[in-house]
Amino acid sequence: MHKKLIGIDIGGTTTKIAFVSWDGQVISQWEIPTRIEQKGRYILSDIATSIEDKLAVLSLSIADFHGAGVGIPGPVQLAVGYLPVAVNLGGFGDINVNDVLSDLLGLPVLTDNDGNVAALGEMWRGCAEGATNIVFFTLGTGVGGGIIVDDHIVSGFSGSGGEVGHMPIIPATDELYFDCNCGAKGCVETVCSATGIVRVAKHYLPRYPQSVLQQELISVETIFAAAKKQDELALLVVDKLGYYLAKSFELLSVIVNPEMFVIGGGVSKAGAQLLPAITKHYGTNIFPTAIANVELRIATLENNAGVIGAARHARGIARYD
Amino acid sequence: MHKKLIGIDIGGTTTKIAFVSWDGQVISQWEIPTRIEQKGRYILSDIATSIEDKLAVLSLSIADFHGAGVGIPGPVQLAVGYLPVAVNLGGFGDINVNDVLSDLLGLPVLTDNDGNVAALGEMWRGCAEGATNIVFFTLGTGVGGGIIVDDHIVSGFSGSGGEVGHMPIIPATDELYFDCNCGAKGCVETVCSATGIVRVAKHYLPRYPQSVLQQELISVETIFAAAKKQDELALLVVDKLGYYLAKSFELLSVIVNPEMFVIGGGVSKAGAQLLPAITKHYGTNIFPTAIANVELRIATLENNAGVIGAARHARGIARYD
Repeated sequence: MHKKLIGIDIGGTTTKIAFVSWDGQVISQWEIPTRIEQKGRYILSDIATSIEDKLAVLSLSIADFHGAGVGIPGPVQLAVGYLPVAVNLGGFGDINVNDVLSDLLGLPVLTDNDGNVAALGEMWRGCAEGATNIVFFTLGTGVGGGIIVDDHIVSGFSGSGGEVGHMPIIPATDELYFDCNCGAKGCVETVCSATGIVRVAKHYLPRYPQSVLQQELISVETIFAAAKKQDELALLVVDKLGYYLAKSFELLSVIVNPEMFVIGGGVSKAGAQLLPAITKHYGTNIFPTAIANVELRIATLENNAGVIGAARHARGIARYD
Repeated sequence: MHKKLIGIDIGGTTTKIAFVSWDGQVISQWEIPTRIEQKGRYILSDIATSIEDKLAVLSLSIADFHGAGVGIPGPVQLAVGYLPVAVNLGGFGDINVNDVLSDLLGLPVLTDNDGNVAALGEMWRGCAEGATNIVFFTLGTGVGGGIIVDDHIVSGFSGSGGEVGHMPIIPATDELYFDCNCGAKGCVETVCSATGIVRVAKHYLPRYPQSVLQQELISVETIFAAAKKQDELALLVVDKLGYYLAKSFELLSVIVNPEMFVIGGGVSKAGAQLLPAITKHYGTNIFPTAIANVELRIATLENNAGVIGAARHARGIARYD
């Protein structure tokens, strides 16, 4: 009988932990606060203590588990096993998460970027079940993501594989050419994140004095609601969002040529309006074979994609004992 | 002792074939014409006959070989094992190369796109030896390429993975926004192939009446020679080439984040001028982690990358006999 898996999704505020069966059934799932004080020095020991407590409650032993997978908000350098930068975790850097957590738990640990493991989660138990080549975009405060090629996470040499939110696709001549938090300009994130969508709406607002958005707090929700009512400004903003996602998808289609693009994150709740906005522009400027039969889907695991994917990631740990 | 490998690189004019040892030493290499008449119906049987003849000459038997790898100029759909399009082979499509050639040879066969297997060749025995994550650009009449992630070719869902020449990176507002042979506009190939470089030079020519290129046949060679002599037009053309390659490399650095970009093809003979033209612009608009310690190198196997890489590709064939 296969052993069980532990999935751990470390976020800036809370850390999700799950015990999962080898084939992806959640046995137990809970969360703990992520203590980012003192450069996050308590994060990993808090996780280990919480797992030990839960094992006791469920009368399980660490020997029942194959390994633990971890998702972390930052690039993870797999070759050296650590995380050079993690601004959202209070500076928690230069830590070899695999080694430190493995020592604490007495179990092998495999870490990757949170977007990458979330992509794996959607492919294992979410909307992309059965697929083996996908690109995942998560449209939240920022734009994260992950790329899976033939069942394998594209982590990259310095852990920057799948950083689709930082593709600099907006030309300098475009009026929507904004600075990105990453230091570059014109990244996908600057116009397709929740923050970016609001930025685009505010950019065009002065030109649309009749828009209902003149009277409202501008948010992703109010923009999509206004678009439903055919508000011209809101329609323009949704079209720009769809356009830039589509142009990103075209580039990715000749680079990794996935069978499916999966869109998650808060913005994906507007899926019924978002998907047609993307498909309108996807395929207008790319060679046809690269986009043939490629599907676009809205993610289904929501906030659990990370913890489920982290558990799936642990299956990649080779054990010979 | 490991068995030997066969590498086959099918080109539009000639097909290269090599017998290679398991660790990459070429035992014998030769070439035959590629007969593209009658939709290329003789291509595979010519290859099989030539291999049988060579086996007899060398007193070898097909049983001495593990498998044959094949590189083909067109997208290869691995899942179904065939080649939907191959315009350069006289329409040689809808053929399951793996099955047909395997029957003819009595040996397992594994086919992929020629750019993909050439990337594998440079990583195995060329300038990228020892690397496991590379992106390969071949700048010839067109721009081909291949992507290797963790030792694995990124073939893609429809065989369009690694089609880096068809990344549409030139904005519609750019005066160098040209139609591409693939049907799209603004692809890397339109300005960075040998044909594209000449196109760019001709585009700017009327503005540079003093250029030495006014008196010469414009070619990649004459452009680079003029740039060496500080000809302003030639310097501009080389700068544009470097700029657009650099912008492609930046995008790829946040998508697959390779440790090395390898540049091959005829244009790469100008490596000493080409590399500084790229590095000048590579990293000016991308987040720093993605480009940290990434190397740029000129390919060394030249026209043999494909046949060597095809042999390496054959090592990926699983055999249980």
